[in-house]
Amino acid sequence: MATRIDCPLGTLLIDWTALLSELRKDPITGRWVIVARERRKRPKDFRMVHEESPGGPCPFCYGNEHQTPGETLAFRPSNSTRNAADWWVRVVPNKFPALEDSGDVVRKADGMYDWINGVGAHEVIIETPVHQTSLAQLPEDHIKEILWAYRLRIEEHSRNPDIEYVLIFKNHGAAAGASLEHPHTQLIATPVVPIRVREELKGAESYYDYKDRCVFCDIIGQEERKPLRLIEESKSFIAINPYASRLPFETWILPRRHLSHFEMLWIDEFEDLAGLVQRTFMRLWRVLDDPPYNFMLHVAPPRSGELPYYHWHIEIIPTLTTVAGFEWGSGFYINPVPPEEACRFLRGVDLTQTNSRAGAEAKVAGIH
Amino acid sequence: MATRIDCPLGTLLIDWTALLSELRKDPITGRWVIVARERRKRPKDFRMVHEESPGGPCPFCYGNEHQTPGETLAFRPSNSTRNAADWWVRVVPNKFPALEDSGDVVRKADGMYDWINGVGAHEVIIETPVHQTSLAQLPEDHIKEILWAYRLRIEEHSRNPDIEYVLIFKNHGAAAGASLEHPHTQLIATPVVPIRVREELKGAESYYDYKDRCVFCDIIGQEERKPLRLIEESKSFIAINPYASRLPFETWILPRRHLSHFEMLWIDEFEDLAGLVQRTFMRLWRVLDDPPYNFMLHVAPPRSGELPYYHWHIEIIPTLTTVAGFEWGSGFYINPVPPEEACRFLRGVDLTQTNSRAGAEAKVAGIH
Repeated sequence: MATRIDCPLGTLLIDWTALLSELRKDPITGRWVIVARERRKRPKDFRMVHEESPGGPCPFCYGNEHQTPGETLAFRPSNSTRNAADWWVRVVPNKFPALEDSGDVVRKADGMYDWINGVGAHEVIIETPVHQTSLAQLPEDHIKEILWAYRLRIEEHSRNPDIEYVLIFKNHGAAAGASLEHPHTQLIATPVVPIRVREELKGAESYYDYKDRCVFCDIIGQEERKPLRLIEESKSFIAINPYASRLPFETWILPRRHLSHFEMLWIDEFEDLAGLVQRTFMRLWRVLDDPPYNFMLHVAPPRSGELPYYHWHIEIIPTLTTVAGFEWGSGFYINPVPPEEACRFLRGVDLTQTNSRAGAEAKVAGIH
Repeated sequence: MATRIDCPLGTLLIDWTALLSELRKDPITGRWVIVARERRKRPKDFRMVHEESPGGPCPFCYGNEHQTPGETLAFRPSNSTRNAADWWVRVVPNKFPALEDSGDVVRKADGMYDWINGVGAHEVIIETPVHQTSLAQLPEDHIKEILWAYRLRIEEHSRNPDIEYVLIFKNHGAAAGASLEHPHTQLIATPVVPIRVREELKGAESYYDYKDRCVFCDIIGQEERKPLRLIEESKSFIAINPYASRLPFETWILPRRHLSHFEMLWIDEFEDLAGLVQRTFMRLWRVLDDPPYNFMLHVAPPRSGELPYYHWHIEIIPTLTTVAGFEWGSGFYINPVPPEEACRFLRGVDLTQTNSRAGAEAKVAGIH
């Protein structure tokens, strides 16, 4: 969970325990950034020759529970004890947190700039005890438990009045920024709303002001009427490749009914969503051969109340292209794969066919 | 200049000549994306085993001028002829353009979505005939010529009433997205203003509305008064590590006088800027050992007239960390190197010391 610094000569893993962090605001755009506060290492640390291997046993596997901070949530048999090796989903504080629950939020001026101390939370949702598996291979029932853990942790952090947003995201594969292979999701609770979410909120609100309709509901309507980019519909959800996909095979999953907060899903919707998530990752796996990807839950801020103009959704972005700094610096993406084409491939996957690497599925199924 | 698609099993270079492109707008955020329009390759093309090597001689070296489209600008001796091998800076259309001058701009609705045909321009500024060199090694006089070429091409494209913005950017090193080693900058002229520039314009305008001062001028003032992040000041420019740096060693260069358009610099300012650019890249080279980086000119839209609230600047972002999709997806960066620390390293570089790889400098100096 350390931060990777890839240099021409090697890779440095930054141990966040040696640091405190702070939040700083860019005065031009209003973007908040988490910046390390402690005195940093010497420049030679950015010029290491060999990649530091995490080494040792995986801290997320059974028997190594003591290698992580004590769990904040776990699904385990009722006669079991905390941190014992019989859980099926386990949530722990990140050993190298970017933000920590270190007391009150302090907001102050730093000359002309704006500053907040590094208050918040950073957790890891260990998705399964099985080291070698993925969302494409886990059974639906198990994915439902993972989604349920997301819900409980969002609710828990939302109770903290200092927290303005709870980010749920997942990096799968080294190219997508994952530093540990064992399937896990991360949660960062922040005292500010991330700028891209603010942008979405603002854009969606101005669409609503003009049309008196939710823009996401309109997108769902259009994709259902003319299914050029519709991968699959379930009872309550829809998986699409968005019209203005930034990157090849960008995929979104949205609830068909209007809902601004993930945690307000009904119980039977969790089951339905788990199935669609599993099938969508299976499709991506088949077409792109287990691609590295980033997965993010975009939700309304926890204490905003239900919003008529915002619609929570999942964004999945396979990491197939090198995103040049130019692209995220300008916001101007060049996508060589039209979403209609990506959709044709994904829709064409035969889901009845057994996945060649799906042996892990059976192993997990045997656990609980 | 083809687009790279990195897959688990290899790399695909997309040849844009086989494609037409179009611009599509994300209805939520208003972000425009360039999307390929033609029927794409089959999915196996995303699963290639071996990296396609560009192979053959470098199209940007002397003697291979016929391998690029005919030049649109070149600095060469007055008795020379077009496309002859005696230029020192040469501008050509990109052989695989993301946008092309293919007639009138067509803006239309595509159901609920907004669409523009792929009209614009995509050029390459070949910075020098020397294959193995960089902005850290080229002499100041030569960098001035490159900056002058930027100016002339911005002016040229700005005359086209269909063009709303001219993006000048540079990817150095494969990790930063460069597909050819020979030093070159790219120019993309677009019928829309990129979203990050729009964000900056909007943020800077609202700061101005409140304070009646330019936010960039205020930043320059603060960094000069309390030089914690001030790398170097020249007569007319300043190089800093910004307060809310997104990534380690993020570096900006700004003119000290208020100016919203790069192309309005005075001639003697070009000379001064060339020196500061050269020294700044030398510092980055020394501290980070020739890091891959992205370089971008942020300027006001060409036909906006001089803006009291916007201040053109250069952004340089070394590609040291893996930017997880999470980070550009949320806009929430975690920067493990405080800019004050980055600044201490960069400021400490002894510029009188000869660069070990600076042999190329002499070679270039001998050319003109």
